[in-house]
Amino acid sequence: IIREINSAACTRIAVDIPSGLFGEDNGNNTRENIIRADFTLSFQFPKLAFMFSDNAEFTGEWFVLPIGLDKAATEAMVSPYVLVEGGDVAGMLRTRSRFEHKGNFGHGLLVAGSSGRIGAAILGAGAALRSGIGLLTCHLPSCGEIALHSSLPEAMIRQDNSRDYVTDTGSTDMYNAVAAGPGLGQHKDTQEALFRLLDECSKPMILDADALNMMSVNKEWYSLLRPDMILTPHPKEFERLAGKSQNGFERLERQIEFCREHKCTVVLKGAFTSVATRDGRIYFNSTGNPGMATAGSGDALTGILLSLLAQGYAPEDAAVTGVYIHGLAGDIAAGESSFESIIASDIINCLGKAFNKLREQNPLDKTYEI
Amino acid sequence: IIREINSAACTRIAVDIPSGLFGEDNGNNTRENIIRADFTLSFQFPKLAFMFSDNAEFTGEWFVLPIGLDKAATEAMVSPYVLVEGGDVAGMLRTRSRFEHKGNFGHGLLVAGSSGRIGAAILGAGAALRSGIGLLTCHLPSCGEIALHSSLPEAMIRQDNSRDYVTDTGSTDMYNAVAAGPGLGQHKDTQEALFRLLDECSKPMILDADALNMMSVNKEWYSLLRPDMILTPHPKEFERLAGKSQNGFERLERQIEFCREHKCTVVLKGAFTSVATRDGRIYFNSTGNPGMATAGSGDALTGILLSLLAQGYAPEDAAVTGVYIHGLAGDIAAGESSFESIIASDIINCLGKAFNKLREQNPLDKTYEI
Amino acid sequence: IIREINSAACTRIAVDIPSGLFGEDNGNNTRENIIRADFTLSFQFPKLAFMFSDNAEFTGEWFVLPIGLDKAATEAMVSPYVLVEGGDVAGMLRTRSRFEHKGNFGHGLLVAGSSGRIGAAILGAGAALRSGIGLLTCHLPSCGEIALHSSLPEAMIRQDNSRDYVTDTGSTDMYNAVAAGPGLGQHKDTQEALFRLLDECSKPMILDADALNMMSVNKEWYSLLRPDMILTPHPKEFERLAGKSQNGFERLERQIEFCREHKCTVVLKGAFTSVATRDGRIYFNSTGNPGMATAGSGDALTGILLSLLAQGYAPEDAAVTGVYIHGLAGDIAAGESSFESIIASDIINCLGKAFNKLREQNPLDKTYEI
Amino acid sequence: IIREINSAACTRIAVDIPSGLFGEDNGNNTRENIIRADFTLSFQFPKLAFMFSDNAEFTGEWFVLPIGLDKAATEAMVSPYVLVEGGDVAGMLRTRSRFEHKGNFGHGLLVAGSSGRIGAAILGAGAALRSGIGLLTCHLPSCGEIALHSSLPEAMIRQDNSRDYVTDTGSTDMYNAVAAGPGLGQHKDTQEALFRLLDECSKPMILDADALNMMSVNKEWYSLLRPDMILTPHPKEFERLAGKSQNGFERLERQIEFCREHKCTVVLKGAFTSVATRDGRIYFNSTGNPGMATAGSGDALTGILLSLLAQGYAPEDAAVTGVYIHGLAGDIAAGESSFESIIASDIINCLGKAFNKLREQNPLDKTYEI
Repeated sequence: IIREINSAACTRIAVDIPSGLFGEDNGNNTRENIIRADFTLSFQFPKLAFMFSDNAEFTGEWFVLPIGLDKAATEAMVSPYVLVEGGDVAGMLRTRSRFEHKGNFGHGLLVAGSSGRIGAAILGAGAALRSGIGLLTCHLPSCGEIALHSSLPEAMIRQDNSRDYVTDTGSTDMYNAVAAGPGLGQHKDTQEALFRLLDECSKPMILDADALNMMSVNKEWYSLLRPDMILTPHPKEFERLAGKSQNGFERLERQIEFCREHKCTVVLKGAFTSVATRDGRIYFNSTGNPGMATAGSGDALTGILLSLLAQGYAPEDAAVTGVYIHGLAGDIAAGESSFESIIASDIINCLGKAFNKLREQNPLDKTYEI
Repeated sequence: IIREINSAACTRIAVDIPSGLFGEDNGNNTRENIIRADFTLSFQFPKLAFMFSDNAEFTGEWFVLPIGLDKAATEAMVSPYVLVEGGDVAGMLRTRSRFEHKGNFGHGLLVAGSSGRIGAAILGAGAALRSGIGLLTCHLPSCGEIALHSSLPEAMIRQDNSRDYVTDTGSTDMYNAVAAGPGLGQHKDTQEALFRLLDECSKPMILDADALNMMSVNKEWYSLLRPDMILTPHPKEFERLAGKSQNGFERLERQIEFCREHKCTVVLKGAFTSVATRDGRIYFNSTGNPGMATAGSGDALTGILLSLLAQGYAPEDAAVTGVYIHGLAGDIAAGESSFESIIASDIINCLGKAFNKLREQNPLDKTYEI
Repeated sequence: IIREINSAACTRIAVDIPSGLFGEDNGNNTRENIIRADFTLSFQFPKLAFMFSDNAEFTGEWFVLPIGLDKAATEAMVSPYVLVEGGDVAGMLRTRSRFEHKGNFGHGLLVAGSSGRIGAAILGAGAALRSGIGLLTCHLPSCGEIALHSSLPEAMIRQDNSRDYVTDTGSTDMYNAVAAGPGLGQHKDTQEALFRLLDECSKPMILDADALNMMSVNKEWYSLLRPDMILTPHPKEFERLAGKSQNGFERLERQIEFCREHKCTVVLKGAFTSVATRDGRIYFNSTGNPGMATAGSGDALTGILLSLLAQGYAPEDAAVTGVYIHGLAGDIAAGESSFESIIASDIINCLGKAFNKLREQNPLDKTYEI
Repeated sequence: IIREINSAACTRIAVDIPSGLFGEDNGNNTRENIIRADFTLSFQFPKLAFMFSDNAEFTGEWFVLPIGLDKAATEAMVSPYVLVEGGDVAGMLRTRSRFEHKGNFGHGLLVAGSSGRIGAAILGAGAALRSGIGLLTCHLPSCGEIALHSSLPEAMIRQDNSRDYVTDTGSTDMYNAVAAGPGLGQHKDTQEALFRLLDECSKPMILDADALNMMSVNKEWYSLLRPDMILTPHPKEFERLAGKSQNGFERLERQIEFCREHKCTVVLKGAFTSVATRDGRIYFNSTGNPGMATAGSGDALTGILLSLLAQGYAPEDAAVTGVYIHGLAGDIAAGESSFESIIASDIINCLGKAFNKLREQNPLDKTYEI
């Protein structure tokens, strides 16, 4: 019957969940026997399966319909999975008081860039500065000096001894948080520098992009992972870190396992970016759009997370808040232009509006008013 | 009588077509015997002759008046000529689904720039990134490194070994599409690099500006042209490629012939840019304005086409869509300022609005909504 | 009596002209015997004396009141002096037709910049490109290459052999107009280069800033001045060129004399910038504001004039139109911010609105409409 | 009783002043015995103690309530302390007359930047140019040349002989005012250059950031301080200059003492920035917000002050006006975005609106109108 329905020339609407689709694991499911809906109207909560790209062909565009379940009862249900919405994040935002100075908002170190990929450092730095950090220093190869100063005079630079790639990140004593990865490349000397950083620096840290790729080929470094570290792989990078998955559900399981084993936070980037914590909780993000599938979008997220860690957010709060605000800024950018035309700089430039919009969702917000 | 009318001190309005002007070929016409109208009100369709600059003195400003011809009959008429309007293009736009990531939108390679003409690379790269490409790498001489990183951190760079011009474009295996030409110059070493690119790279390709000029002086390379190649000459560059024409009609015939013979797509730039396909169809573009007759406007078009090819558009669809959206962005830019003040960067910055405006003309558009 | 009035603690309003002030030459006037008005309400026409800064203390802020003089009679009066208003200039604007391409709008060469003063070239180039020129090449010392490409990708660069200053401007055969001066410095080698340019180049030319200063110390070069040259000194530069003046009236006389003798156009910059032509006409400009008294404002004017000459404007039309549009753009910039905060880039960025605003004042304008 | 109230789970509102808090010096006060109010409603005037961060925990957010005190009586009261509001500053703004040229607005020299900290020079220069200065030259190490020209073509550059730091500021004869400090670093050669500058240059001067830090380790230079010098330390820099303070009141006393002894103006930056003059007056600033606690905000203030000194403002007027306008620009920036996203460039870009907004508060303003 389902195959008959799927082959009919009509619009298909699924109620609650497409028939044949399991709510969580569809690894052993027979895909031809699942309804391919154009729209799914789901009761009260989205199902876990809706979060995975491999099920998009079944759910089509999905909506959640409240059906009046008892609020106390639903809140009493314990689930490791949360779909994060504005109301969840708004209250996490750090407020600023009248007398705070830039020292209160931390000094971050961004280790990024290599010859031809200096832009990654510029984007990461811009996102950090637009997310509330007090001071920012970029450690980059000397070929990036002029472009970064030209683009972002607010950032300070610590030049590597090498022109073309990072060979030593130096002391991190004066920083409150460190991010490493965007545009680094994987030169042997950069690998050694990254190892020393992981080994010697005890500051809260974000690892992204090539830092993750270098870690993937040095799996003995996993023992250096710590609770105040956030890893931000996209699916391919995660695969290199934790092995192949057959589908989104399996990948989620690996993500949970990875965080439990290595005691860190992993942000797995995608349409519904999932933040997994070291104690097994999973936060799916609800903001963002396919216009953000563009060069440098991930570098911007790294900068936001660095900024939040430097300001003293706990790693999980930083990850959940940062991912949400990054997607919200992208949604604002898309509203002002089109999916095709969004570039990462647009996301960064919309961060101010995103913070404001998010804050409006917190009825208790007592932010200082002008 | 016509000469009498033409010398009268009055406003002249032609009905359907100025008397004495033929609808297509006016190569052997006697120009003194054609009415020089200030305005032409044409029935149902613009005539082919209206597309050519050499006839502008006869038609003046022209308008099309519907006269109620039977729709079925007119649609049954087969013509190789189409005047492309929004409704024709909107449906060609690729839509994005929730789960798509930057890998879905392709990685383009832009081969551009030489000493003193690095701006051409910057403009091409900016237009590509604002047109939906997933990732972009610019291959340019090393003198362009800092300016490109400063201007556009979203772009990656592959530096040529030469400081001043391109000598080798390297492997193109990792790219989905390649564009070559803007600001390249015609150094002997660059010619050799272009030959190797044409000879070895099998990716969809745009050839523009100096790439066309170098091809013009190496006509034996014509045998390397392919169906997934788009050439974007302006009239002078086309003349170098295909020989002199006495007038617009003859130039169009040469364009058709060139495409048929060499099995490629040719975009002949002008007021009514014509896209000729290898099977003899001609699409005239209806957007754009004389404010776009400005330095770098063509580089922007090259970037747009690279972006569309990288995203998987067929060459003809890319050409027709890219030319339309380029002109539409220019029209939006002109509406915000003046013909004099438009610079190529304005066109690029209006691409977001142009994609949105175009999409509005597609009643079936199901683009994901924020 | 006048001294009594001037010392009274009250607001003084002059009718037609402050008592004691002559309408033109006040060189031999006794300044203590002239009313120092706060406001002057002048009949039908402003007086020539109102154009000079040395009389501002007498007129205060002045306004023109129509008193119903017979229009035919006033128009029959011949005067070499014109106060240029929008209606006078709007009709001079070149209109663009559908089929024009960038070749129709000329290729200009801007010779500008030296070590530490590269910004002058960037500003001049930006203004030229925002004023309708088809193509622009900047000849500058090689130290300016990256900053210009980063700032303005639409401009092409021809690097001098020297890193720090201009030593040879090369052939100017391919250009339609040339401007020399902004930020050049006065190095001996630059002087030699300027001499060769003056001696060998027969294109319409603007001389500004250091080009004028170098000419001042090489007065034998005056014989190379020509009818298609525009000089744009501010009062100090004009003094170096033509000698000291005791007051504005005398300076105007010297300006007229200089133009007559050397058969060129001189734009003497100030509050009411005066354009003197080689046949003795004087056009005072009515746009502009003291917020434009800022670094680089003059470089922007040079760029505008280069653009207009390259587009084929006659030197006098270019001078009158360019000065008017420059001031109008500055007025628009001031309306959007404050006198203190205007920088030259703001003037350049307002050129688009200025062209539009000016065009609106021409009831006959048939500019192509989108 | 007070401890009981402080431990109660309720909102606490203090009337006039929190019980137990002294109006001025709380150095010997017992902090547990002071009411910790959420809000304080103060009669007619804020108390001095409200200006200090160490008392914020007692006052909470405070408001001033007029209680109808006799105006003549309150105005007759002499106090060295002024809380500066718009009405106080608007009248100090220099107005511009029709005929003024850029020479009237001064030429400033900004000595700033070192390798990796060139951005400080860019921000200071931008703020100066957006605050009304006629001409600006930056003296910086040669590594900053390209980034500054790219970012701000309106600024001229004088390169140091050193690539990486300032070693000699050269002659200052042609400048109307000098600012030294932002991003300078403290290299021994830079210290020597600063000493020579202080010793030889007699122009009005601002000393900021590293200039102050270098002075702190060379306290014998204090004898070179002069009435036309403004120092702009933040609390830590002030501590290095004048020794540790136990609290805000003590720091204010040290500030007053420092200015009296060394005959200069000191701007102590913070939430209520205090300007102390050499004759013992103190101006607290009322604009600004915690979003301005961001990298480069202080560099922008230095640029503003340089601009005002170059335009001929007396040091005290420059300090009071500059601090006010800097905070006002920051408030405008915050209104357009969020505290997190403000970067120093935003403050600079809002200076135009700030000048306008301030001017609106002056009913007597006769600024030239467009």
